[in-house]
Amino acid sequence: MDKVRIGLVGTGYIGRCHAIAYAQLPTVFNLQDKIELEYLAEVNSELADKRAKEFGFRRSTGDWRSLVSDPSVDVVDICTPNFLHKDIALEAIKHGKIVYSEKPLALTASEAEEMYLAAKKAGVKTLMGFNYAKNPTSQLAREIIANGEIGEVIHFYGTHNEDYLANPSTPIDWHCYKHLAGLGALGDLGAHIVHMAEYLLGSEIEKVCGDMQTVISQRPDPKDNNLLRRVENEDQASALVRFKNGAMGTLETSRIACGRKMGLTYVVTGTKGTLSFTQERMAELKLYLHNDASNRQGFKTLLTGPEHPDYEAFCISSGHGIGFNDQKAVEIRDLIEGVLNNKLISPDFYVGYHISCVLESIAKSAIERSWIDVSELQKA
Amino acid sequence: MDKVRIGLVGTGYIGRCHAIAYAQLPTVFNLQDKIELEYLAEVNSELADKRAKEFGFRRSTGDWRSLVSDPSVDVVDICTPNFLHKDIALEAIKHGKIVYSEKPLALTASEAEEMYLAAKKAGVKTLMGFNYAKNPTSQLAREIIANGEIGEVIHFYGTHNEDYLANPSTPIDWHCYKHLAGLGALGDLGAHIVHMAEYLLGSEIEKVCGDMQTVISQRPDPKDNNLLRRVENEDQASALVRFKNGAMGTLETSRIACGRKMGLTYVVTGTKGTLSFTQERMAELKLYLHNDASNRQGFKTLLTGPEHPDYEAFCISSGHGIGFNDQKAVEIRDLIEGVLNNKLISPDFYVGYHISCVLESIAKSAIERSWIDVSELQKA
Amino acid sequence: MDKVRIGLVGTGYIGRCHAIAYAQLPTVFNLQDKIELEYLAEVNSELADKRAKEFGFRRSTGDWRSLVSDPSVDVVDICTPNFLHKDIALEAIKHGKIVYSEKPLALTASEAEEMYLAAKKAGVKTLMGFNYAKNPTSQLAREIIANGEIGEVIHFYGTHNEDYLANPSTPIDWHCYKHLAGLGALGDLGAHIVHMAEYLLGSEIEKVCGDMQTVISQRPDPKDNNLLRRVENEDQASALVRFKNGAMGTLETSRIACGRKMGLTYVVTGTKGTLSFTQERMAELKLYLHNDASNRQGFKTLLTGPEHPDYEAFCISSGHGIGFNDQKAVEIRDLIEGVLNNKLISPDFYVGYHISCVLESIAKSAIERSWIDVSELQKA
Amino acid sequence: MDKVRIGLVGTGYIGRCHAIAYAQLPTVFNLQDKIELEYLAEVNSELADKRAKEFGFRRSTGDWRSLVSDPSVDVVDICTPNFLHKDIALEAIKHGKIVYSEKPLALTASEAEEMYLAAKKAGVKTLMGFNYAKNPTSQLAREIIANGEIGEVIHFYGTHNEDYLANPSTPIDWHCYKHLAGLGALGDLGAHIVHMAEYLLGSEIEKVCGDMQTVISQRPDPKDNNLLRRVENEDQASALVRFKNGAMGTLETSRIACGRKMGLTYVVTGTKGTLSFTQERMAELKLYLHNDASNRQGFKTLLTGPEHPDYEAFCISSGHGIGFNDQKAVEIRDLIEGVLNNKLISPDFYVGYHISCVLESIAKSAIERSWIDVSELQKA
Repeated sequence: MDKVRIGLVGTGYIGRCHAIAYAQLPTVFNLQDKIELEYLAEVNSELADKRAKEFGFRRSTGDWRSLVSDPSVDVVDICTPNFLHKDIALEAIKHGKIVYSEKPLALTASEAEEMYLAAKKAGVKTLMGFNYAKNPTSQLAREIIANGEIGEVIHFYGTHNEDYLANPSTPIDWHCYKHLAGLGALGDLGAHIVHMAEYLLGSEIEKVCGDMQTVISQRPDPKDNNLLRRVENEDQASALVRFKNGAMGTLETSRIACGRKMGLTYVVTGTKGTLSFTQERMAELKLYLHNDASNRQGFKTLLTGPEHPDYEAFCISSGHGIGFNDQKAVEIRDLIEGVLNNKLISPDFYVGYHISCVLESIAKSAIERSWIDVSELQKA
Repeated sequence: MDKVRIGLVGTGYIGRCHAIAYAQLPTVFNLQDKIELEYLAEVNSELADKRAKEFGFRRSTGDWRSLVSDPSVDVVDICTPNFLHKDIALEAIKHGKIVYSEKPLALTASEAEEMYLAAKKAGVKTLMGFNYAKNPTSQLAREIIANGEIGEVIHFYGTHNEDYLANPSTPIDWHCYKHLAGLGALGDLGAHIVHMAEYLLGSEIEKVCGDMQTVISQRPDPKDNNLLRRVENEDQASALVRFKNGAMGTLETSRIACGRKMGLTYVVTGTKGTLSFTQERMAELKLYLHNDASNRQGFKTLLTGPEHPDYEAFCISSGHGIGFNDQKAVEIRDLIEGVLNNKLISPDFYVGYHISCVLESIAKSAIERSWIDVSELQKA
Repeated sequence: MDKVRIGLVGTGYIGRCHAIAYAQLPTVFNLQDKIELEYLAEVNSELADKRAKEFGFRRSTGDWRSLVSDPSVDVVDICTPNFLHKDIALEAIKHGKIVYSEKPLALTASEAEEMYLAAKKAGVKTLMGFNYAKNPTSQLAREIIANGEIGEVIHFYGTHNEDYLANPSTPIDWHCYKHLAGLGALGDLGAHIVHMAEYLLGSEIEKVCGDMQTVISQRPDPKDNNLLRRVENEDQASALVRFKNGAMGTLETSRIACGRKMGLTYVVTGTKGTLSFTQERMAELKLYLHNDASNRQGFKTLLTGPEHPDYEAFCISSGHGIGFNDQKAVEIRDLIEGVLNNKLISPDFYVGYHISCVLESIAKSAIERSWIDVSELQKA
Repeated sequence: MDKVRIGLVGTGYIGRCHAIAYAQLPTVFNLQDKIELEYLAEVNSELADKRAKEFGFRRSTGDWRSLVSDPSVDVVDICTPNFLHKDIALEAIKHGKIVYSEKPLALTASEAEEMYLAAKKAGVKTLMGFNYAKNPTSQLAREIIANGEIGEVIHFYGTHNEDYLANPSTPIDWHCYKHLAGLGALGDLGAHIVHMAEYLLGSEIEKVCGDMQTVISQRPDPKDNNLLRRVENEDQASALVRFKNGAMGTLETSRIACGRKMGLTYVVTGTKGTLSFTQERMAELKLYLHNDASNRQGFKTLLTGPEHPDYEAFCISSGHGIGFNDQKAVEIRDLIEGVLNNKLISPDFYVGYHISCVLESIAKSAIERSWIDVSELQKA
C-alpha cells in the first residue's frame, strides 16, 4: 500500500479533532500523497455532505454500512458515540478494514472481547484513540521510566477528572445512559488514565479494588427541564490497584470534579526518583532525582522541545508548545506509518479490550465491595 | 488557674519545635506571665539539664516519672518516641495532669483506647499534636467548607508523603519497629492526613479499604552497615474511605516518596467548588468556585494574611508567611487558653484514639483485602 | 474575491509553521475552497520543488521575483531572513499584492517606513506576523483590560527572553550580523513584546530609555570553530518606557537568558487588578481583582477554553490546549477573512513600522544614554 | 561582653516582629543567658509599659533619650518611623551604643551619610534590618552565585512590589509625607530589592536611570474622609541599573501593585544558569543549569531544608518551612554573635548609606530624565 484511504464515521466532538489532525499531518510529518480523505459517514446524508465539505473528504454517506464495505476505504475511523463502536468495528473487520476506534472500545468488556477476537482472527490492524499517550511530554515520561532514571516504579497515582457534568442543572445526555455509553466517568475518562498508567509503567494492572458514586442521580431532560431523568452510571470512581510488576497504584476519575478542565494527571514514584504531570500543563514534566546532591535536590520542570519525542515535526524551538489536536496528529501518523510499512500499531484492540476489563473490574469491585483480579473478567 | 506550668518530656526533633513555640508564644499571643516552663525530662539527667538550659526550663530530671508526679507541673507535654506515649500519659492522668501528646497517640488502637478512657474517666483535659490543622491556611480551608462556599463535599483526596526513608541505605531506626513505633508510614504521617480530612470535612471516616507495602524490607543496622535488619512496618499505604456524611475519599501516605519533603496535600471537591493545598506552600490555598462566570472560572490562589484565622498575631501584613514552628505556637496557644479559661481543647485524646482506629483499620483491611467498618475496632 | 491564492517565500523555521497553519486552517475555520496554496519560492528550484511537495503547494520557483509578479498569487507571505523583507515586500506591493510579512518588518526603521508608505500609497492590505497576540489567552487579556476589569492600566512589565544563543560556543549565524538581521535580541524577540504591550494596552509607546549589551562579543565561524567572528548586535536589552496613556512600562529581551525557552511574559497592573502571563504556559492567564473580599483575594488562573476568543474552533472542551502553530492559524484566518470580506486586517505594516521605530529608539537611547521620544524617529 | 542587653525603640509593625524574634532566638540558636531584653521606649510611658510587659522587657520609658543614654543598654534597636532614625542613631552613637536600625537608614542620602560617618568615627558596630537576605533560600541563592554555579552574572531583574496603598480610598499615612518617610515606594520597599541585588551579586550598583510616578496624588485625611491631602512621594518606580561588575539590571518597586502581597522577587541570569525567586514562596528557589543534558534541562525547585544555611536551627526536616519572623531571628543572631565574638556584622550602616544613595540617585534620575552615577551622590 502506498497511500492510506480514510473512511471517517462520526463528526462530533472527537471526529472534528480527527479531521483537523488529518488536515495538518501530511505537512507536519511529510506525508503528502500518503493519505486520502476518501469517505465520510454521518447520521444522514445532508450532514455527511456538509461535514465532508468542511473536512475535505471526497465522498460522503448517510449510512455507515456503505462506508465500511467500500473498496476504496482502507481505514475505518470510528468517532461515533460509544454504543455504535461494536457494530461498526465488527462490520469493518468483516470487510478486512483496518479499524481505528475511539475509546472506550465498547459498552462492556464482553463486547470488547468480541471485537478484539474478531480483529485478531481476521488479522486486521487496529488502533485505539488514547491520544494523551502521544503527547511528547508523556512519551518523555515513559522514556525516563524505561531508562530506569527514577529506579523501579513503586507507586502510581493517576487521575482523569473533569467537570463537564458538575452542574446538576446540565441536562442529561448519552454519557449518562448505560445502553449508550456503558460506564460513566470510568468509561469516558477513566479509560485514559488506566491506559496512561500501563503505558508509562510498561506493566498491566492485575488487581483492583474500586469505589464509585452517582452523586447527581437525576438530571433534567434536554427538552423539558421539569422532567427529571435517572442517571444510570457513575459520576466519580476511585480504585486501589496492583500492577503485575508489584507496584501499588491509585486511580481516580470524575466528571463532576469542579475546576478540573483537563484533569489527566499522574505522579509516578520510583525507588530513585519521581515524575509528576498534569495535562493542563501539557508541555511540562516534573522530574525529581533522589541521587542529586542533598542540597541541590528538587523537582525539575522539563519543558518539551525538539530534543523530546515527536515534537520537532511541529516546531524546532523548545517550549513553543503543541496542542490537543497535535496529539491526534501523532496518533494518526503512527497509524499511517504502521499501515504503509506494515509495522505494529499501538495501542491496538487488545489494549482497548484489556482496559475495558480493568474498568469493568473496578465497577464490579465497587459493587461487591471487594478486590477483584482482572483475570476474572479478562479471559482472552 | 492563672498560669500554666509546663512539664516537657522528650527533646528530640519535635520536642525542640515545642520548645521554640513555648519561647515565642507569650510575645506572639500576649501571654506573658501565663506560661511557666517548669520542668523538663530526658533519658538521663545530664541531657535533661543541658536541654533545660537551652530551652529555658527551670528544672530538669532524668526520670519522667518524677516529672509527671510533680505538683508544680500542670501540663505534661509528651514528645518522646511513640512507644513511651502510653505509660507517660497514663501516669500523668493518674496524677491529674493535663496531657498534651504528639501523634500517634499510641502503638495500637487498643492502647489508645485505654489512654482515651483513662483521661475521660479522670476528667483531665487532653490535646493531640496535629499541628498542620493549626496552619491559618488550613483553618481558612475549614472555614470555607463550613460556610458551604464549595457546596456539599463529595470527594476528599489527601496525602502525607515524605521521603525520609527513600534511600535503602539509610540505617534502620525506631520508626521501623512495631514495638517502638507501631505502624509505619500510616502511624507517623498517615495520622496527620486522616486528622486533616476529618477536621476539614467535619465528618468522621466510617469505612476503609486499604493497601500497603514494605518496599525496603531490610535496612542496615546503624552501627554495622553489613548487618541487615528487618523493617517491620509499612513504607507506603493507600486507602479508599467513606465519610459518615457520604463523601468518598482516597488517602495516601509514604515515607519513601522521593521528592516529597512535606507532602501533606489535599484536594477537597464539593458540589459547587474545590479547594487544593500542599503544605510545601503552606501559605497558599487554591479555591475554585463553579458559579463564577463561565469565562472567568479558575483556581484562585489565596495567600494567607491577617484577614485569615490566627495569622495577624505573627505579622500584620499579608503574604509575609509563618513557619512550621508557628503552627505549634497556635496549637499551644489553644492549650493555654483552654486551660486558663476552662474551655474545650481540640483535638483531644478522643480524636487521637479515633484516628488510631482508622489507621489500624486501614492496616487490617490491607491484610484482609477487604473493606472494614472503623466501628469494628472503635468500641469506645 | 472568493478564494485567496497564497504565494509563500521562504520555508525555514517560520515558513514551516505557516505551512502547517495553511494545511489545517480550512478544516479548523471552515474555509475549504477559500484558500489556494498556489506558489512557493525558495533559494533554488530544487529546494522550492521539494518544499512545495511537502507543504502541498501547486507550483514552485527558485526566484521570488517570479512569485511576487505572478498573476495567480493574491497574497505574498514573506518568511525569509530579515534582510530580504524589504525587497520582496516592495516588489510585491508594486504588483498590487497583499503582503503578509514576518517580524521585524525591516532591518531599520527607515526601511520599514519606506515599506509602510509604499503599501499605503498602493492601497494594498498588509499583515504582520505577531502571532502571540492571536493566542486566545492574550486575546482574553486584551478583552479584560478593554472591559476595564482591572481598572486603568498604570504599569506594564514585559519580556521576551530566550536562550537560543546562551552557549558561547554556538556558532555565529545571520541573527548576529547587522546587514542580515538588523537589531539583535530587540529585533528578533523584542518586537514581539513591544507589539504585545501596545496590543494589550491599546496605547502606543511614546518615550523610551534603553540599555543593551553584547555579552558574547565573538562566536565561532560555523565552518571553522577556531575562527572567531564578531557579533554585531545586542544579546540583551532593557528599556523603561512611557505609553501615550501615561502608563509606565519596563521591557526586557534577551537571546542568552538561560532557561527561558519561550519567555514572552507580561504583568499588567491596573488600578483595580492585575494580569500575569507567560507564553510557556500559553493556556493560563492569572487575574487578580482588588475588589474581591479582602479574605478571598488572590490571583485566579483562567485556563482558556471555548468561552474565550478563537479557541472553540480547535476544540469544544476547556483546557485541552492549543499549540504554537494554532496561533498562526488564527493569524492567517484573520488574513483570509480580511481579504474575502474586504475588512481591515491587523496588525498591519503601520504597526510593523511603528514597532521598528520603538525598537530603534531603544537601541539609540542605549547608545546615547538618554530618553528618546519615539516621534524623533517615527515621522510617518 | 558575655551578654547583650537590648534597648528597643518603637513597637509598631516591625518592632513587634523584632520582639517575637528576641523571644524565640535564645531557644532556636542556643543563646540562653546571652540576651537581656533590658529597656523599651515608646511615645509615652503608658504604651511603653504595656509593650514592655507584652514583649518581656525589664524596663520601659516614654523618652527614647533616656534609653539611648542608659548604661545598661548595649544595643539600641531602632524600629520607629523613618523620620526618627537619624536623631536616635546619632544620639546612641554618641553614647557608644551598638546601633541596629530598620531600613531605610534615613530620610535622605545626606542624613544617611552623617549617620554612617558618625558610627564610623565612633567605631561602633551597626546593623541594618534587611531581613530578606537572612532567609535561608536567599542565602542559598547567594551561595550558588558565589560558587559560580550559574557562571558570571549578566543580568538581574528584581522587584519589591506590594499593594498596601492600591486602594485610592485608603487614608493617607506617614509613608506618604517626605518629612516623615523620605522617599515613597523606593524608600519603603525599593531599599530591600536594592540590598538584595547587591547582596546576591556581591557587587554594587554604579549607575542608574529611573522613572517614577505618584499615581494616586491625593488621599483622604484619616480623620476626615472628605478632606483630601497631597501624597508627596512616589507610588511606583523603576530603574535600569549597571553593577560595578558590568551586569545589567532592572529594578521595580510599587506600593500600589494590586495582588502583590510580598512581591520581593528576583531573576538572576548568569552565563551558565539562572536563579528565580519570589518571597511569597519563601522556601523555594528555582535553579536552571544550562550545562544539563539538552533533553533534561529545566528549572529545578529547591525547597530549603537543613542542608541549607540557617535552616536547621528551626527544624531538622526539609520543606517544613520557616516564616517571616524567623528571618528576623537570624538577623538578630548575627547581631548577637557579632557583638559577643567581636566580629563584623553585616549589612552595616555603610550599606544602609550606600543604598540610600542608590535610591536617591534613582529618584533624581527620574526627575532629570537621565542616567546618574551613584558616585555623584555617594561621596563617603
